Amino acid sequence: MNKVHNFSAGPGILPQEVLKQASEACINFDNLNLSLLEISHRSKNYEKVMDEARSIVKELFEVGDDYEVMYLGGGASLQFAMVPYNLLRENGTAAYVNTGVWASKAIKEAKMIGNTKVIASSEDKKFNYIPKGYEIPADADYLHITSNNTIYGTQLHNFPKSSIPLVCDMSSDIFSRKVNAKDFSLIYAGAQKNMGPAGSTMVMVKKDVLGKTGRKMLSMLDYQVHIKGGSMYNTPPVFPIYVTLLTLQWLKKNGGIAWIEGVNNAKAQALYNEIDRNSLFYGTTAVEDRSKMNVCFLLHKPELETEFDKLWKEANISGIRGHRDVGGYRASLYNALPLESVNVLVDVMQHFEKKFGQ
Amino acid sequence: MNKVHNFSAGPGILPQEVLKQASEACINFDNLNLSLLEISHRSKNYEKVMDEARSIVKELFEVGDDYEVMYLGGGASLQFAMVPYNLLRENGTAAYVNTGVWASKAIKEAKMIGNTKVIASSEDKKFNYIPKGYEIPADADYLHITSNNTIYGTQLHNFPKSSIPLVCDMSSDIFSRKVNAKDFSLIYAGAQKNMGPAGSTMVMVKKDVLGKTGRKMLSMLDYQVHIKGGSMYNTPPVFPIYVTLLTLQWLKKNGGIAWIEGVNNAKAQALYNEIDRNSLFYGTTAVEDRSKMNVCFLLHKPELETEFDKLWKEANISGIRGHRDVGGYRASLYNALPLESVNVLVDVMQHFEKKFGQ
Repeated sequence: MNKVHNFSAGPGILPQEVLKQASEACINFDNLNLSLLEISHRSKNYEKVMDEARSIVKELFEVGDDYEVMYLGGGASLQFAMVPYNLLRENGTAAYVNTGVWASKAIKEAKMIGNTKVIASSEDKKFNYIPKGYEIPADADYLHITSNNTIYGTQLHNFPKSSIPLVCDMSSDIFSRKVNAKDFSLIYAGAQKNMGPAGSTMVMVKKDVLGKTGRKMLSMLDYQVHIKGGSMYNTPPVFPIYVTLLTLQWLKKNGGIAWIEGVNNAKAQALYNEIDRNSLFYGTTAVEDRSKMNVCFLLHKPELETEFDKLWKEANISGIRGHRDVGGYRASLYNALPLESVNVLVDVMQHFEKKFGQ
Repeated sequence: MNKVHNFSAGPGILPQEVLKQASEACINFDNLNLSLLEISHRSKNYEKVMDEARSIVKELFEVGDDYEVMYLGGGASLQFAMVPYNLLRENGTAAYVNTGVWASKAIKEAKMIGNTKVIASSEDKKFNYIPKGYEIPADADYLHITSNNTIYGTQLHNFPKSSIPLVCDMSSDIFSRKVNAKDFSLIYAGAQKNMGPAGSTMVMVKKDVLGKTGRKMLSMLDYQVHIKGGSMYNTPPVFPIYVTLLTLQWLKKNGGIAWIEGVNNAKAQALYNEIDRNSLFYGTTAVEDRSKMNVCFLLHKPELETEFDKLWKEANISGIRGHRDVGGYRASLYNALPLESVNVLVDVMQHFEKKFGQ
């Protein structure tokens, strides 16, 4: 079998050794002669998985016992509702920065729950930059930001200094680089990009922001219920959480955040350098806000698309078709993507220029 | 490796061939040379999975296009809230039958959302029977029942005739027997007992009951949003849904509901016959309400527990420890459990009687 270079925007590439372990666990988990898919989540073998999956997040983020980690179903989209439901007081206000489609969806749900103010937006330029220099209302209950924008290929390289609780959707760049997690009161991420497969969402929350809204809450939407139950208030998404643990163990074993940040910088640099050098392509976003996870680029001559598509497909490249809102191409460089795959793409781009450039 | 007889109450046993297919898909799905865990849910290969997973439910239930099928994250527990959120009008009333812990939790969430009336309950006898002969309020928005009670080992063998929309939590006995699905307006089930692994929940709803509450709804809690998105409003639990499809394909291929009902009747009869015959054991529930999925039984002499435990463990039996609310033993006989495993348990019980009976 030829190796596929998987640039999928998400669900995205996972480490080969993780996929092998996941495959084995479907047949025989933990030498029980039983599949992980058919054992009780209350078994001590699985409770160990859940405990480790929670503690490794705190370890990688270097936070203490003032934070709790949960794994929940429903995706980051459910968190768009759960964040305001748990943090926005009945008469309070939430502040949001709108940097793309996902932030817009988060804002829509927050507005259903309470007063929601959009304090900055890059919608005026189709979200191709990150707003900066905005004022954060000191009396808002929290500020919500999105660290990376999968669709538009922008990323926050400097987080706002905030005196109010900072909430961040890190779905598409979590654990890709060093962040000072203690600056955040809540971080959430759908697992299916840098953390694991689709089906579970990680929420890390500083306990002191909870229990302040006065709102009577539905059990499944109440962070405190899930924290009390150790993410086992009800049957959790067993297998997705296990594969997430394997992925984070792979990250830790290979050198953790410091190691992966170096790898990710090298990958992004190689690809952006080629986009800037190559006469046939150009990048779509403000240079200083370029995402190191999702690299969006267009052809100067869209009529050459068929020719370029032929070349990258021949090279066993998969998943670089751009999102319909932006068009062109998007190469997602998540943690598990090796530099080798980026080099293959760069080679294809150079070969393409030789054939079709002037 | 010795075969384990897996009587787990859930997540429960899945067919061996399904586990093998699931394991393979973790490495190479659909001959893409990519894992199912790392491809886009928008790929045509996965869209086919989702379409089939939805249509096979309608096929097995023999319903038409007036019904829609969804797969959602969050477990049946999230449905405890979503059902009233979508069906209970602001000034309406919902009627519930309380037959156990899960029904009680559903009632608790419904009460958070609107007027909720418990019209019958078996709480007076620790839920060891199914209430019958109650009156259904003709003006209620819906009647909610739970078809099988995993913890107490009771099951509805006759569904109430209802002039109002009938809603049923079938988490623990879905597709185990023939039901007239057209009598129900909404059926939901956490997949992890008879349908697949943990992490996805199936909801089948008759379209004409939706959109009547006048309630402004959070997107992720709105059935109409998920129906419109074909269960892909956001990234679905990709792998759990795929394994659910494999499990339902296994069921269909082997003869469907008619076939499995025969197998399940044979398994339940073999075990209940032994409980009734054996001088050392007794059943915990009203005989006419006994569950064919979860068989609860106790020792007349609890002091013999250690001896019995030793015997079934030697026979490679797993997961028959009773729930803490009932004690004793609980053997779950879900679809994928072969009659052979029940025969092994019956042999152990007979051997035990020979050694310790009088």
